[in-house]
Amino acid sequence: MDTAKETLNKVLHPYYPRDAHLPHYVASTLNINEAFITLGSAITVTMIISAVLISQAQKKLTCKDKYIVVWMLVCAGIHMVLEGYFAFNHKNLAGMQTVMADLWREYSHSDSRYMTSDPFTVIMEGITALVDGSFAIVTAYGVLTDSPIRYPAQLITSLMQLYGNILYMGINLMEGFRYTNPHPFYFYGYFVSMNAIWMVVPTYLIFDACKNIYRGMLIAKRAAIVKKAN
Amino acid sequence: MDTAKETLNKVLHPYYPRDAHLPHYVASTLNINEAFITLGSAITVTMIISAVLISQAQKKLTCKDKYIVVWMLVCAGIHMVLEGYFAFNHKNLAGMQTVMADLWREYSHSDSRYMTSDPFTVIMEGITALVDGSFAIVTAYGVLTDSPIRYPAQLITSLMQLYGNILYMGINLMEGFRYTNPHPFYFYGYFVSMNAIWMVVPTYLIFDACKNIYRGMLIAKRAAIVKKAN
Repeated sequence: MDTAKETLNKVLHPYYPRDAHLPHYVASTLNINEAFITLGSAITVTMIISAVLISQAQKKLTCKDKYIVVWMLVCAGIHMVLEGYFAFNHKNLAGMQTVMADLWREYSHSDSRYMTSDPFTVIMEGITALVDGSFAIVTAYGVLTDSPIRYPAQLITSLMQLYGNILYMGINLMEGFRYTNPHPFYFYGYFVSMNAIWMVVPTYLIFDACKNIYRGMLIAKRAAIVKKAN
Repeated sequence: MDTAKETLNKVLHPYYPRDAHLPHYVASTLNINEAFITLGSAITVTMIISAVLISQAQKKLTCKDKYIVVWMLVCAGIHMVLEGYFAFNHKNLAGMQTVMADLWREYSHSDSRYMTSDPFTVIMEGITALVDGSFAIVTAYGVLTDSPIRYPAQLITSLMQLYGNILYMGINLMEGFRYTNPHPFYFYGYFVSMNAIWMVVPTYLIFDACKNIYRGMLIAKRAAIVKKAN
């Protein structure tokens, strides 16, 4: 009986490893395109809000800084709303009929840990939603207001994103990508390409933050020496 | 036969969960006190080296900065040597007869993931050894030479330590502390108290770094305004 149930369970979900325990999985009754359109629209709205905020910034922003504001606000949205939703609903996500559950069911083809309440994934995503999300907003605020908080916030956000992502990908690599559907569409299209974005951009922003903090601290040090001399 | 083997395996190691798969476990043939004395001596030597470096620093260091140099160099030693040893030898650690394997066999009473090549633990410790270890040295160098690299390095080291530790403890908490021997000596004496150190000190040093970077960036910003005005 148990074996029969197990076989049934194996057949009833599309994820890897094929024997992942997912008794609560229910296939989506919604149209996946609707979920993608909703996600795309939400990102577009966030970008428009970013553009409005940029246009009203006290100081004229460089092109790079404009991109950083957009990046940080889009990240904040993804971290707090989408990843926060996962962290909050991970236990029931595989059987929920909502647009966000649909998006996670789709992404889980590239990583079934999102369907199985994998402890590392849940804790990491919870921290990402709360900490990375908050500091992404602080960074955008820092750029828009030319605040000295900008670079430490940029360093914290990007370092947390990069470390979380390296752990996330590293564990899957060490386990032989067993959570990932080996089809190139899921492996490269979802798993590699989507996570690569959160490896490349944060790495650049960490260097950018360190370089600017180094320069600022050097100027501050010299200013202190001049002040002492006078 | 398999069940008999499994039962034998359950009896043949002292770790939690009691059914952890550890066929390669071999009890230590060395005296655990020797391992502790070796660890204590290594930390003492690192502290003496720190004191020598502090005495030869270009600038007279504050008491706080002296502590930070000692902390960072002791951390670098623990991360690179002890945790590096684990990351490098995790597969065979449970059966090795060396002082460092002994230390890990002892600590593993509070967390058996160190004996079972748990993927999260291996990847996290590998990153800690390489990245946290290197940046801890850069931080100590930054304090000793009064370099502008000091605070970004302090922020990176401490944030990596704190994030790694929160994930490490969070996963065990989510899994009901199943990897930890519930005896108060191991639970509080090893697991809670040792990890608490790497929660409290990095948290303080993150705030300290952010505060100092904020101040420095503010001075740099004002200096730029003054320069522009002249």
